[in-house]
Amino acid sequence: MSGNSFGKIFKLISFGESHGAAIGGVVEGFPAGYVVDIEDIQNELNKRKPGQSKYVSSRNEDDKVEILSGIFEGKSLGTPIGFLVRNKDSQPKDYDHLKDIFRPSHADYTYEIKYGHRDHRGGGRSSARETVSRVVAGALANIILRKQGITLYAYVHSIGHIESQSNYRELDMNSINDSVIYCPDKNAEKKMLDLIEETKQEGDSLGGEVVCVIKNCMPGLGEPVFDKMEAELAKAMLSINAVKGFEIGSGFQSTKMKGSEHNDIFINEGDEFRTKTNYSGGIQGGITNGMDIYFKVAFKPIATIMKDQLTADKEGNSILLEGKGRHDVTVVPRAVSIVKAMSAMVVADMLLRNSNSKF
Amino acid sequence: MSGNSFGKIFKLISFGESHGAAIGGVVEGFPAGYVVDIEDIQNELNKRKPGQSKYVSSRNEDDKVEILSGIFEGKSLGTPIGFLVRNKDSQPKDYDHLKDIFRPSHADYTYEIKYGHRDHRGGGRSSARETVSRVVAGALANIILRKQGITLYAYVHSIGHIESQSNYRELDMNSINDSVIYCPDKNAEKKMLDLIEETKQEGDSLGGEVVCVIKNCMPGLGEPVFDKMEAELAKAMLSINAVKGFEIGSGFQSTKMKGSEHNDIFINEGDEFRTKTNYSGGIQGGITNGMDIYFKVAFKPIATIMKDQLTADKEGNSILLEGKGRHDVTVVPRAVSIVKAMSAMVVADMLLRNSNSKF
Amino acid sequence: MSGNSFGKIFKLISFGESHGAAIGGVVEGFPAGYVVDIEDIQNELNKRKPGQSKYVSSRNEDDKVEILSGIFEGKSLGTPIGFLVRNKDSQPKDYDHLKDIFRPSHADYTYEIKYGHRDHRGGGRSSARETVSRVVAGALANIILRKQGITLYAYVHSIGHIESQSNYRELDMNSINDSVIYCPDKNAEKKMLDLIEETKQEGDSLGGEVVCVIKNCMPGLGEPVFDKMEAELAKAMLSINAVKGFEIGSGFQSTKMKGSEHNDIFINEGDEFRTKTNYSGGIQGGITNGMDIYFKVAFKPIATIMKDQLTADKEGNSILLEGKGRHDVTVVPRAVSIVKAMSAMVVADMLLRNSNSKF
Amino acid sequence: MSGNSFGKIFKLISFGESHGAAIGGVVEGFPAGYVVDIEDIQNELNKRKPGQSKYVSSRNEDDKVEILSGIFEGKSLGTPIGFLVRNKDSQPKDYDHLKDIFRPSHADYTYEIKYGHRDHRGGGRSSARETVSRVVAGALANIILRKQGITLYAYVHSIGHIESQSNYRELDMNSINDSVIYCPDKNAEKKMLDLIEETKQEGDSLGGEVVCVIKNCMPGLGEPVFDKMEAELAKAMLSINAVKGFEIGSGFQSTKMKGSEHNDIFINEGDEFRTKTNYSGGIQGGITNGMDIYFKVAFKPIATIMKDQLTADKEGNSILLEGKGRHDVTVVPRAVSIVKAMSAMVVADMLLRNSNSKF
Repeated sequence: MSGNSFGKIFKLISFGESHGAAIGGVVEGFPAGYVVDIEDIQNELNKRKPGQSKYVSSRNEDDKVEILSGIFEGKSLGTPIGFLVRNKDSQPKDYDHLKDIFRPSHADYTYEIKYGHRDHRGGGRSSARETVSRVVAGALANIILRKQGITLYAYVHSIGHIESQSNYRELDMNSINDSVIYCPDKNAEKKMLDLIEETKQEGDSLGGEVVCVIKNCMPGLGEPVFDKMEAELAKAMLSINAVKGFEIGSGFQSTKMKGSEHNDIFINEGDEFRTKTNYSGGIQGGITNGMDIYFKVAFKPIATIMKDQLTADKEGNSILLEGKGRHDVTVVPRAVSIVKAMSAMVVADMLLRNSNSKF
Repeated sequence: MSGNSFGKIFKLISFGESHGAAIGGVVEGFPAGYVVDIEDIQNELNKRKPGQSKYVSSRNEDDKVEILSGIFEGKSLGTPIGFLVRNKDSQPKDYDHLKDIFRPSHADYTYEIKYGHRDHRGGGRSSARETVSRVVAGALANIILRKQGITLYAYVHSIGHIESQSNYRELDMNSINDSVIYCPDKNAEKKMLDLIEETKQEGDSLGGEVVCVIKNCMPGLGEPVFDKMEAELAKAMLSINAVKGFEIGSGFQSTKMKGSEHNDIFINEGDEFRTKTNYSGGIQGGITNGMDIYFKVAFKPIATIMKDQLTADKEGNSILLEGKGRHDVTVVPRAVSIVKAMSAMVVADMLLRNSNSKF
Repeated sequence: MSGNSFGKIFKLISFGESHGAAIGGVVEGFPAGYVVDIEDIQNELNKRKPGQSKYVSSRNEDDKVEILSGIFEGKSLGTPIGFLVRNKDSQPKDYDHLKDIFRPSHADYTYEIKYGHRDHRGGGRSSARETVSRVVAGALANIILRKQGITLYAYVHSIGHIESQSNYRELDMNSINDSVIYCPDKNAEKKMLDLIEETKQEGDSLGGEVVCVIKNCMPGLGEPVFDKMEAELAKAMLSINAVKGFEIGSGFQSTKMKGSEHNDIFINEGDEFRTKTNYSGGIQGGITNGMDIYFKVAFKPIATIMKDQLTADKEGNSILLEGKGRHDVTVVPRAVSIVKAMSAMVVADMLLRNSNSKF
Repeated sequence: MSGNSFGKIFKLISFGESHGAAIGGVVEGFPAGYVVDIEDIQNELNKRKPGQSKYVSSRNEDDKVEILSGIFEGKSLGTPIGFLVRNKDSQPKDYDHLKDIFRPSHADYTYEIKYGHRDHRGGGRSSARETVSRVVAGALANIILRKQGITLYAYVHSIGHIESQSNYRELDMNSINDSVIYCPDKNAEKKMLDLIEETKQEGDSLGGEVVCVIKNCMPGLGEPVFDKMEAELAKAMLSINAVKGFEIGSGFQSTKMKGSEHNDIFINEGDEFRTKTNYSGGIQGGITNGMDIYFKVAFKPIATIMKDQLTADKEGNSILLEGKGRHDVTVVPRAVSIVKAMSAMVVADMLLRNSNSKF
């Protein structure tokens, strides 16, 4: 049983190989009657697009989304929203030399062994190009969230060893888009840009961390005992290529705190329950409590580097893999829009799911 | 749409409140023809059981599992396996004073707001007692894994600020059960026990980390692009009460490494593909590659402490919550069996799901 | 992937073999805050129970339902409702002679070939005793329906060649329970009872038809294009043992009508849309239109008869199967409560699912 | 929760409105390594296509399928197969007069009430044009079936009151495609053609029955207790527009038989178990037994007729709906390919699901 669907009520079914005809998907469960502006979706897609600055890769794709169904006279019909983005700039021959090679820390070997037959061009289905579908679905999900007043922010917290020294409350969430690498901490941003430039010269790659903050989310979302809000967010994040870690609220740091320090005390302010601190990250017992939801996601350094590497081919021969082609030094800035898209899908799904808990 | 099912083909549906009649569940999708020894399941349950040593809580439960269906003449029928564990030691009156109180960092408030009506006794459905079902299902999953030669280990890596200085390869996985707190690092264990004792005196609580290692797992398991092996493991872990973080392989540390350091080079040894290093944690592109799968899980300190705390009641009044009752200082040692159970369920499900990828 | 779950949001997971420890299940997705009277559930179960009259089988079971979770202080918690009914009157030795025999038109052979290992006692999982779980879940579903003002009726329309000459509109739905065989047509009932008695003497068995009518269902329920209301009802009915056919509204008769006769003309009465005729059976395009939903279900004659029959054993030998034991002449009267239960589950699920179509 | 997905492992997600940009879908769960000839798929689509003869409607569509993913170098990748068929011949203005009218026995009213906003052009999502996706997915499913040696036949058994007097065993299944209306009974065919012609002159429409036969299906397929083979087939059939009834094997006729007549006696021939008769229709206890699977499907007369009809508009006014446009007299011949497609999907899904029952 394959795994190309995400969500239970607000659901994305995704398809497409990096160098096939198109990347696309179907969003099932989008309710009827919402105004859907395709330009909004296109804008989100543009943020994810390669070739936006010297800091990100230079593959040239138009990435023009086409909506095939589900929208009529500018409003959603409650029927499935089919969409696609054509793959234009595919140069399949560039990949001939990789047909029988298992690149280090790529999915070549595992796809070969799992499926027997694979599209080796640009990683095929395992390529991060697949996230095009996620961004489209995330933009649709966000329409539902906006109507509820929920706002999502995501930004680059660290690149390599350069890390913002501020937590999200000390940063201006509205300045994220002012940064070419989506880092609202000006000090950190400068050092990050230098590190990216320097690493590019070395032909090497970098990882980093993305922080996501969900503000103004009503209490009550999340479906224990298995589909807790943080569990679905964790799955959503770890389903993104290159992600190696996830922490919600106090995260790994919590393991070093005592209960008396970590407990979030309830207070009642203006007829609303709040907690004095928010180590819980806005979720208790798997259900949102109305406080900010925040979490951090770890991305490993990109596996494709411009340095030569030894590896094996299909026959088991040791092979020297040359570093060449066009590639990002780091995915972290572009990953910001994927993190947001996946988070939006999780929250939209939980909104719809919660409507069944009291009927 | 509620969230009390876990898995797609090997599936657990869980039910039960902490102080209701029973905790139980149904395992659907367990294949026919396996020898099922109920004593094995009971043994796993005993490891999770409170009251085993002075280091863990003293609630007295027999926790005797009863299998209601699906097993005939000692072998699985391929039909659903219903089971239950009666709740014996419930003293509902102990909980009367908590009926209208929202305890700090518990799920009282969020359950109240989500469902309107809740069982306040011992946390009801939000209690960690719910994990009884997970352990039973995990023990069943493990029968499938054993037949495939797959072995799961989990152990306590840290308690509070006391952390093992060794990685799992330097420790003897077979000595885990020799430790009363399931920590195979003798040096660390001693310090952990001291810290637990000391914190108990303070009436406070501790968090910590559990490491899980899955050995001898065949390559090919995991269902991209959303149901990647690490994504399902992350969800499984974050669905456990008190978990705040998850990292696979190199985890958060990877964000500080360069691609040239982090890449796992393929080599062919004796007709098997292996990688020189294993920063990937046994998973590439969401699919197992035959190397060890290892991950770390962060548990926050227990919310229930023996110190008095301020909090709010249902009406919004500020209330002093007295610290009393019987409670663990830390869940981490007992959580080891839950981590194992959830991991076993994920791998069993992926084994069954993978049988469809090439049919 | 096994098939012991029914429904998407209001969901029953069923377990249990005829002569195992218990039949039971879990109802997931029952919303919070409903008053649940266990006596109501027990009453439904009593209607299905064997041994009620000379017309139905004489197996002696208490069939006492025990609710294990999900209800607290008489009201639903929104958490899973686990339940079981113990199997008391099992006399396993009665079945020893059937261990290796494939009874005609039973599931012995197919279970043997599918699972390799089977519980031969009383049909094991394939026994109609499994429907105990359906009745419990149906009674729970009915609580939701009642709150919405929806009423379900089901009755015996025919037994063997004795068929009611009236359609449901000409019969008094409230007199169904006055009939020992749930047939509100007094003329037909008498003949049916005679036929049952006569057939009992012959040691043979009978089939028949059940009609179900759902009144006062709001328009808008049903989820095209695949989960149309009639599609889910058809699946629900054909999932019941011994069912061979299903027709909605005009059914097979419609194939002989012309469009101009069959079309249901819309009229507006007192600000409500109705149709003049109701050949559609209350469903158009897979969605309810507010008119009565009615359908007919065909049950084959029971496979177990008191006559000797030739059949084959596991080794392929021809075997004379003696007709003996305690068995119904026909399942049709008892099936009435199963038809109602399954219908209630379908409508409850659709009610909850529909709440997502406009959010 | 919407209902545009069909199947559990072999799964179709369908999208598209009749006069939107395209009809399409995603087939998830198609295993890797199968040769997929797109011409085969196109051929199936051509059979469903309108405008093939004077007996079916004259809408002019190319209905050219484009495969967007999942196939590489002519073989399946095990990744989702996205596809679409553009809607070319849409003349939206033709539908302006229907914008606010609820046509008799169409889905206009129910879509309006369920979704609030609907695409009125040609029925939008409720149009039978949606079945384009089913035919494509069915053709893909059939590739899997062929590899297992399973063959599906479907043919027209009756149109209006003209009914074939033969059962399927007496007809030549291989001559079905020789008939312009897919009726292999030459006598009946002639009368049917006459009736169609005559009814066309009247401006009226006709229903009829399709019989489907699945030959050479291995025993063991079907997932009791809810996802029985006949239950899934029933759902599949009732999910098709205009279907009002379904019967498997002896169907409604069984209700008039006695057990001693109806029981299928097992015999062992050449080391294979068979039954002497096959009233069971190849399924016992919800699981195939290796005999022919056969069932009959009832289609009502098309709701669109060339006669004027009274109906209501959105405001509740009585309106005269003129009979005009281009429409089939009956869907039954074209429905043959839909019945086959849905059946193929059910069997493919059950094949894959069954692989988990003994692992």
